[in-house]
Amino acid sequence: MRRDLFTEDHEAFRELARDFIEKEVVPAYPQWEKAGRMPRETFAKLGETGIMGITLPEEYGGGGQDDYRYNVVLQEEAARALVTLSTVRTQLEVILPYFLHYANDEQRARWFPGLAAGTLLTAVAMTEPGTGSDLAGVRTTAVRDGDDYIVNGAKTFITGGMQADLVVVVARTSTDPDNRRAGLTLLVVEDGMPGFTRGRELEKMGCKVQDTAELSFVDVRVPAANVLGEEGQAFSYLGHNLAQERLTVAVGSVAQARSAIAAAIDYTQSRKAFGTPVASFQNTKFELAACSTEVEAAQAMLDRAVSLHVEGELSGADAARVKLFCTEMQQRVIDRCLQLFGGYGYMMEYPIARLYTDARVARIYAGTSEVMKVIIAKSLGL
Amino acid sequence: MRRDLFTEDHEAFRELARDFIEKEVVPAYPQWEKAGRMPRETFAKLGETGIMGITLPEEYGGGGQDDYRYNVVLQEEAARALVTLSTVRTQLEVILPYFLHYANDEQRARWFPGLAAGTLLTAVAMTEPGTGSDLAGVRTTAVRDGDDYIVNGAKTFITGGMQADLVVVVARTSTDPDNRRAGLTLLVVEDGMPGFTRGRELEKMGCKVQDTAELSFVDVRVPAANVLGEEGQAFSYLGHNLAQERLTVAVGSVAQARSAIAAAIDYTQSRKAFGTPVASFQNTKFELAACSTEVEAAQAMLDRAVSLHVEGELSGADAARVKLFCTEMQQRVIDRCLQLFGGYGYMMEYPIARLYTDARVARIYAGTSEVMKVIIAKSLGL
Amino acid sequence: MRRDLFTEDHEAFRELARDFIEKEVVPAYPQWEKAGRMPRETFAKLGETGIMGITLPEEYGGGGQDDYRYNVVLQEEAARALVTLSTVRTQLEVILPYFLHYANDEQRARWFPGLAAGTLLTAVAMTEPGTGSDLAGVRTTAVRDGDDYIVNGAKTFITGGMQADLVVVVARTSTDPDNRRAGLTLLVVEDGMPGFTRGRELEKMGCKVQDTAELSFVDVRVPAANVLGEEGQAFSYLGHNLAQERLTVAVGSVAQARSAIAAAIDYTQSRKAFGTPVASFQNTKFELAACSTEVEAAQAMLDRAVSLHVEGELSGADAARVKLFCTEMQQRVIDRCLQLFGGYGYMMEYPIARLYTDARVARIYAGTSEVMKVIIAKSLGL
Amino acid sequence: MRRDLFTEDHEAFRELARDFIEKEVVPAYPQWEKAGRMPRETFAKLGETGIMGITLPEEYGGGGQDDYRYNVVLQEEAARALVTLSTVRTQLEVILPYFLHYANDEQRARWFPGLAAGTLLTAVAMTEPGTGSDLAGVRTTAVRDGDDYIVNGAKTFITGGMQADLVVVVARTSTDPDNRRAGLTLLVVEDGMPGFTRGRELEKMGCKVQDTAELSFVDVRVPAANVLGEEGQAFSYLGHNLAQERLTVAVGSVAQARSAIAAAIDYTQSRKAFGTPVASFQNTKFELAACSTEVEAAQAMLDRAVSLHVEGELSGADAARVKLFCTEMQQRVIDRCLQLFGGYGYMMEYPIARLYTDARVARIYAGTSEVMKVIIAKSLGL
Repeated sequence: MRRDLFTEDHEAFRELARDFIEKEVVPAYPQWEKAGRMPRETFAKLGETGIMGITLPEEYGGGGQDDYRYNVVLQEEAARALVTLSTVRTQLEVILPYFLHYANDEQRARWFPGLAAGTLLTAVAMTEPGTGSDLAGVRTTAVRDGDDYIVNGAKTFITGGMQADLVVVVARTSTDPDNRRAGLTLLVVEDGMPGFTRGRELEKMGCKVQDTAELSFVDVRVPAANVLGEEGQAFSYLGHNLAQERLTVAVGSVAQARSAIAAAIDYTQSRKAFGTPVASFQNTKFELAACSTEVEAAQAMLDRAVSLHVEGELSGADAARVKLFCTEMQQRVIDRCLQLFGGYGYMMEYPIARLYTDARVARIYAGTSEVMKVIIAKSLGL
Repeated sequence: MRRDLFTEDHEAFRELARDFIEKEVVPAYPQWEKAGRMPRETFAKLGETGIMGITLPEEYGGGGQDDYRYNVVLQEEAARALVTLSTVRTQLEVILPYFLHYANDEQRARWFPGLAAGTLLTAVAMTEPGTGSDLAGVRTTAVRDGDDYIVNGAKTFITGGMQADLVVVVARTSTDPDNRRAGLTLLVVEDGMPGFTRGRELEKMGCKVQDTAELSFVDVRVPAANVLGEEGQAFSYLGHNLAQERLTVAVGSVAQARSAIAAAIDYTQSRKAFGTPVASFQNTKFELAACSTEVEAAQAMLDRAVSLHVEGELSGADAARVKLFCTEMQQRVIDRCLQLFGGYGYMMEYPIARLYTDARVARIYAGTSEVMKVIIAKSLGL
Repeated sequence: MRRDLFTEDHEAFRELARDFIEKEVVPAYPQWEKAGRMPRETFAKLGETGIMGITLPEEYGGGGQDDYRYNVVLQEEAARALVTLSTVRTQLEVILPYFLHYANDEQRARWFPGLAAGTLLTAVAMTEPGTGSDLAGVRTTAVRDGDDYIVNGAKTFITGGMQADLVVVVARTSTDPDNRRAGLTLLVVEDGMPGFTRGRELEKMGCKVQDTAELSFVDVRVPAANVLGEEGQAFSYLGHNLAQERLTVAVGSVAQARSAIAAAIDYTQSRKAFGTPVASFQNTKFELAACSTEVEAAQAMLDRAVSLHVEGELSGADAARVKLFCTEMQQRVIDRCLQLFGGYGYMMEYPIARLYTDARVARIYAGTSEVMKVIIAKSLGL
Repeated sequence: MRRDLFTEDHEAFRELARDFIEKEVVPAYPQWEKAGRMPRETFAKLGETGIMGITLPEEYGGGGQDDYRYNVVLQEEAARALVTLSTVRTQLEVILPYFLHYANDEQRARWFPGLAAGTLLTAVAMTEPGTGSDLAGVRTTAVRDGDDYIVNGAKTFITGGMQADLVVVVARTSTDPDNRRAGLTLLVVEDGMPGFTRGRELEKMGCKVQDTAELSFVDVRVPAANVLGEEGQAFSYLGHNLAQERLTVAVGSVAQARSAIAAAIDYTQSRKAFGTPVASFQNTKFELAACSTEVEAAQAMLDRAVSLHVEGELSGADAARVKLFCTEMQQRVIDRCLQLFGGYGYMMEYPIARLYTDARVARIYAGTSEVMKVIIAKSLGL
C-alpha cells in the first residue's frame, strides 16, 4: 500500500544508503559474521558519507537532520539487502538521543565530532547480572570523590560493548529507601580508564554481526565532567527514550519481514518440487499472501507511529503496541517464509535462516512482549 | 493511536448518527432481532435526518457528499452502540454505487428521491443456487421482447431481499461461448412486477436484524428503461465496486472488534471471580492488551486504505489485504473478549454473544478469506 | 488411528444407540431445536431401550454397567449423526454419579427406577447469580426445621432446569467464617414443592435442544429424607465428580470435531467452485489434513484419559489437560471446517453452523480454559 | 499422564542410557558442539555398552531386541539431559533398518559386527542438489560393469556424511521413461573407494553436533556384492522405512518439548523479575500449563503410534499425522518456553536456545509438514 511517510530528501538519503550498503556491506558481510562485528573502518566510512551524523548538529560535522525518518530509511535499506548494520542502529537510535538531549556544550564539543565521523563508538550499559529489565534494581555504584566519581559494578548484555570508546553507564549515586528509582545517574566511561575491563562476549543465537559483552568496573575513576545530564535523573532519561528504542525495533521487524517475503517469492519461483515451481502450489500462494497481508498491516501501524513520533506525539503505550505487533508479526512471517525453502531454509548460507535467528530476539529486547502487554494494559485502565 | 482521517464535517455527522442510534435504534433493537429486520419507518426516519442520502446529489434531496468517510462514521457509531444498521449498510455502501455510477437521468429522477428519503429499499441479486462467487456462471436470463426484457431465474443469499422495493438483478442477456463473462446485464426489478416472488428467508447464525432471502423470477417483464448502465457490462460494473464492498466489511470488523474490547473492559472491571475483579488477573490484562494491539494495527491499515479509496487509489489487491486482515482480526479479538465473560458470554442477552455470531460471516461474504488470498497472491506475481 | 478402548459389549451398545438416534432423534431434531428441548417421551423411550439406566444397578431396572465407556459411545454416536442428546448427557454423566455415590437405600428405591425408565428428569443447581464458578460463595440457605429444611435462594445457568423433576440443590446448611467451603449440603428439591419456581429460560448462542433456566426457592420445605449424602459434605462431593464432568465435555468435543471433518469432506467433494470441486484445491486438502491430525491427537489423549478414568486413576490435573486441549481443538477444527462451506456455513440449515455455535460453550462450562490452566499449573508446582 | 508403553526391560535399558549420557555425553557436549560432531570413540563406547547394537541379532554381537521402543527410550534420555545423540539416532533408526531388512548373509557377516560395535559409522545418501524430496528424480547413476557398478553423481544434505564408513547411496541403475520410480538401487559405498570424496560441510542453524555434508561420486567402482537388496527396488525400500523415519522425528520432538518445559519451570522458579519469581506471574503459569497440555496430547498420540508400529500396524498416513502434530507442537512449545527466559533465552549457553534452533528442522526433514499434509489428505480420500 502507498506510504506517505517520506519526502524527497529521505528518498535521496535512501539512494545514498542503498549504494553504501551494496558496495561496502553486502560483500563483506560473511566475514563480519565470522568476526562477530563490523570493522571500525566501516563505521568511519559511514561517517564520511554523512550517515553516522545525519541527526547531529551541523556545527559538529553532522547533517543537522533531527528527523527520525532517516533512521527508518537506513534500516529499511539494510533489510532490503538482507543485512543488518550491526551496532550502527544501536548507536544512532538508542544511544545518540542521550547525547543529543543531555550533553552540555563542553561535552558536545568533545564528543560530537567523533560521533559524526564514526570514529567514536558507543554503548549503553544498563542491565546487570540478575536484574534484567528492572532498572530500579541497579547495583553499580558511583561515589563522588572530589572532581571524580568512583564507579564499581558489573554490566551484562551490552550491545557493542567490545568496541565501544564511550560507554554510557547507569550507576547509583545515592540511595533513597523510599524510592528505588531515585539516585541513578548516567556517566560516560571511556575506553582505557583504569579499572574498566571487558569480559567475555556472549554467544547469541543470531545477530552475529554485533557483539554482546559483559563489562566490569572496579574503582574506575570517572571525572564529574563525564556525567551526562543531571545527577540522579537517569531513570527519567531512560524512560524518555524508551518509545524510540521500541520503535526502532519495530522498524527493523517490518523491514526484515518484508525482505523475507521477497526472498521467498524469488526462491519459490525458481525452485521446483515434483516438477513444478514451488510458487505454483496453492499453499505457497496462500502462505505468501497471508504474510504480505500481515506486513502491510504492520507497516501501516508503524508508519502512523513514526509520524506521531516525528511530531513528538507517540505515547509510551502506543510504542508498546507497535513493538508488540511488529515483532510478533516478524516472527510469524519469517517462520512461514522459511518453511517454503524446505531444507535450504535451515542452512545458514541462505539469508532466510539468518533472518529467522535474528528475529527471535526482537520479542525480547527493549522490553519483552510481556512487558509491552503490562504497559498497554495500564493504558486501558486495567 | 491518533487518527487523521476525519474532518470537522465528519465529526458533526458523527454526532448526528450517534444521536439517532441512541434514540431510535438501541431501544428498539431487541424487537428488531426477533422480527429479523429493521422496520420501514426507521429507514424513513434515517432519510429525514439525511443519513440515507448523504452521498446522493443535493438536487434529489441528498447530502451531496460523495465521500466514503461518512459511511465509515456511520458504521463506527453503530458498532460503538453495539448494534448494526441492518441493510442500511448494504444499501449505502454496496448498492448505491451502482445507481450513482450507472443510472441515467431519467432513472435518477425516478429513484434518487426515494433512495434519499429512505422510502425506496434496495437489494442486489447476484448469487444463484449452485454458483456461489462464480459470477461468470450466472444462469438467470433476460430476453429482449419489444421494449421489455423477460427475466427468468432464481437467486439466493439476497441481503434485504424481503423488504426491497428495487432489486438489482444480474442476468444474462446474451451468451458468448468464448467469454463467460460477457453478456451479463443489470436490470432493476420492482416490487409488484408479476412473476417476481420472494421465497423463504434463510436462517443465519447471526446478523439477525437483516433478512437473507431467496428470490424467484418467472417470466417477469422488466421495461428496458430499467436496465442500469449498458447491456452486457455487468461483469465489469460488479468488479469495479468490489474494492468498496470489501472495505465496508473491514470497517465493520474493526469497529466491532473495538466495541468488543470496550465491553470486555467494562465487564471484567465490574465482575468478580474468587473475590477479585476479573480485570485484575494478569491473564485478563494480557488478553485485552493483545486485542487492543491487534485493533490498532487493523485500524491503521484500514484508515490508510480508506484514505486511498477516497482518492480513488485503492487497488483491488490492497482492498483484499485489508478485508482479510481486518475480518480475521475481528474474529480473533471477539473470541478472546467473549472468553473473558465466562458463561455470560454464551448468553444472547450479552451483546458480546451477538458480536461473536455476527463476526463469523465477515470472513466469508464479499469474497472469502481464500478468495482474498488468491487475489493477493496474483498481485505478488504468484 | 486404531483405538483399543472398546469391547464387543460397547460396540453392541453402539449399534443400539446408533439405531435409536437415527430413528428417534435425527428426524425430530429440527422440531426440538425450535422447542428448545427434547420431549419427555423421548427420555422415556431412551429408558425403554436401556440407555438411560445403563450405569444403574440391575435391581432398579438399570443395565448394571458401571463403565464410563458407555457414555462415551453414546456421545460419539450422537455426534456422528450431527445431533446432541440434550440434557441426557448431563443427566447420565454429571448428575447420576451423585445419586449413585450418595443416595441411601431408601432414596435408591424411590428414585432409581424412574431414573432408569427415563421418567424422572434431573438437574443440578450450583451456580448463583454473581458467584460463577466460586462454589464456596454459595448463598442459598437450607435451615433445619424439624424433619425438614427450609430452602431459600436463587440459582442460574441450570441445564435442564425447566424439565427437571428432581433438582439437586447446593445449599448452605451452616456457616463457618474460617472455612467457606464447609457447611454446604446437597438437597433434592422436587417438582411441585411449594415455593420452588422456574424463572425465565436463558437464550443461548447454541445448544438449542437444551434449556438453561433460572430457578427460585422461597421457603421451600424439603424433607430431610431428601438430603443426598451427608450434611455439610457437598463441597467435596462436587469436587469429586469434576474430573468426569470435564472428561464428558472433552468426549463431546472430539466427537463433534470428527463429525465436522466428515461433513466438510462430503461438502467439498460435492460442491464446485469455479468449475472444480472445492475438495480439489490444495488449501482444502491441507486444511482438512490439519484438522484430521488435531482430532487424532485429541482422540489419543482422550482415550488414554478414559482408560485411566475407568481404572479410577485419572488425576484432576490430567482431566483439566484433556478438557483444555480437546475443547480448544474442537473450536479450531470446526471453525476451519465451516470456512470450507463458504456462505452455506453461516446458514443454520447446515449442521456445521450448529456445531460451531454449540462448540463455543465447551471452553467455558465445567470450568473455563483459564480455570483449567490454574489447575494444571498447580500440578506443575507453579 | 500415565504411559503403558514400556516394560521392565525398557526401563532397565533407560537406566543404562541415562547413566551413559550423564557420564559420557553431557560433560563433553560443549566441545562436540564446537567440533560439529561426536568423536568416533564415543560411538565405540556406545557399542561397548550395547546401545549401538541393541536391535541387531545376537550372533553378530547385537542385543537381539527388534523392538523400536529401545530407540524411543534412548532419545527420551538424551532429551532429558538436554543433549542429542548426534548421528547415532540416524544410524539406529533410519539406516539400520535398511541393513536389517535387505542385507544378505554375506553382508550381515561383513558389516553387522562393526555396526554393533559402533566402529562402522553410516550415512544414507538420497537427496541431490535440485531434487529435494523428489526421489523419483534421482540422477546419480550406477552402471553395471562386470562385477562392479560405476557410480557417478552428487548428493547433498547427508547427515553424518563426513564420518561415515559406509554410505548407502540411492542410484539409478536403469531408466524407464514410463515409470520414474523404477530402476533405483541401493549401493553401499565405502570410505576410501577411489572417486568417492566428501565436499564441504553445510553450516546449519542448529543440530550442531552432527555434520551435514555434500558427497561426490566420480567413477566410483562399487562391487555388486555391495548392492543392498535387489536391483531396482530402492524406491519401495525407501518408502517402506519412511513411517519409522517420521516416527523417530516425532519421538525427539516430544521428548525435547518436554525437556524445554522442565527447563523453563526451573528457570522461572529461580529467576526474579521486579522482586518476585517469574514463575509466580499468572502469564508464566498459563504459558507452562498450555505447553504441558500440548505435550501430553502429543505424547498420547505418539505412544499410540509407537504401539501400532511395534505391532507393524502403523499406516503411512498416521505416521504423517504424528510427525506433523509433534513437530509443530515442539516448535510452539519451545518458543513459548524460551520466551520465559527473557534475554537469557537468546544466549547459546542456555540449552533452551539450542533446543529452539534444533527444533526448526523437525518440520522440514523426513518430509516437510506440507508433504505430510499431502499424505494425510490422500488418506481422507481427497
